[in-house]
Amino acid sequence: MIEIERKFLVNSEAFKEESQNSYRIVQGFLNTDPERTVRVRVKGEKAFLTIKGMGNTSGTTRFEWEKEIKVTDAEQLLKICEPGIIEKTRYEISSGDHIIEVDMFLGGNEGLILAEIELNNENESFLTPNWLGKEVTGDPKYYNSQLSKKPFMQW
Amino acid sequence: MIEIERKFLVNSEAFKEESQNSYRIVQGFLNTDPERTVRVRVKGEKAFLTIKGMGNTSGTTRFEWEKEIKVTDAEQLLKICEPGIIEKTRYEISSGDHIIEVDMFLGGNEGLILAEIELNNENESFLTPNWLGKEVTGDPKYYNSQLSKKPFMQW
Repeated sequence: MIEIERKFLVNSEAFKEESQNSYRIVQGFLNTDPERTVRVRVKGEKAFLTIKGMGNTSGTTRFEWEKEIKVTDAEQLLKICEPGIIEKTRYEISSGDHIIEVDMFLGGNEGLILAEIELNNENESFLTPNWLGKEVTGDPKYYNSQLSKKPFMQW
Repeated sequence: MIEIERKFLVNSEAFKEESQNSYRIVQGFLNTDPERTVRVRVKGEKAFLTIKGMGNTSGTTRFEWEKEIKVTDAEQLLKICEPGIIEKTRYEISSGDHIIEVDMFLGGNEGLILAEIELNNENESFLTPNWLGKEVTGDPKYYNSQLSKKPFMQW
């Protein structure tokens, strides 16, 4: 499938009051090359293997393939991932018809808060909460694959 | 799981007469790093995603994780693999209690024939057919991941 996603910085922690759901994410990469990212993710009680291709020029759409895997398998796979395991807490916030996912990063990326919204097409509009900041869609340094190699605290 | 495998060159095409089964394999790599190889393989009518870790010093045992995926998914994933798709015909040959898999490579690796035998433990003995040649277990240049980057015809 093709993933259509826009990514934003977050101005304040006000989103926490609007969040209905939050969980911990631990993820590593078997490849951080933006042309063929391979991600192992433990997300709450579940685990997934996700492969992404290169984005289009604007960075909005990207080929994505995902499969649920066993948590115990993911734990084995995390051991052979590239150095730079990412840990973050994800908050889900309803905004109009959409769900905004806000990631508060931990470890080497502490201090970074990113929001992502998945759209049905590139031109779809959405309700913008006041804590949503500058758009960073398509900026590779905010890709989790790049954050694992060059974490926020080293910028 | 841990994979225990020994790999050999093949001296002649006599193995073909002993083969009960053969099929075409097309495969690409989402990562060729021997520490975290990610392989997409179409094998006859099926497809698999396989992740391998680093081998031990002798190269006999290697962490391996494999999951069957849809052939149509594999075809999409092959498009974003690293350059150097490998094509080969695999022959299966019974030898005592074991199955020997012989790969005749095509394309940039034409002329190369490799045999692999999977064992239950590192010291298990097996019947050696007369067409089995020099052992190359653990030699990285015979890894398929390396053959995709530096094919046999360029050696």
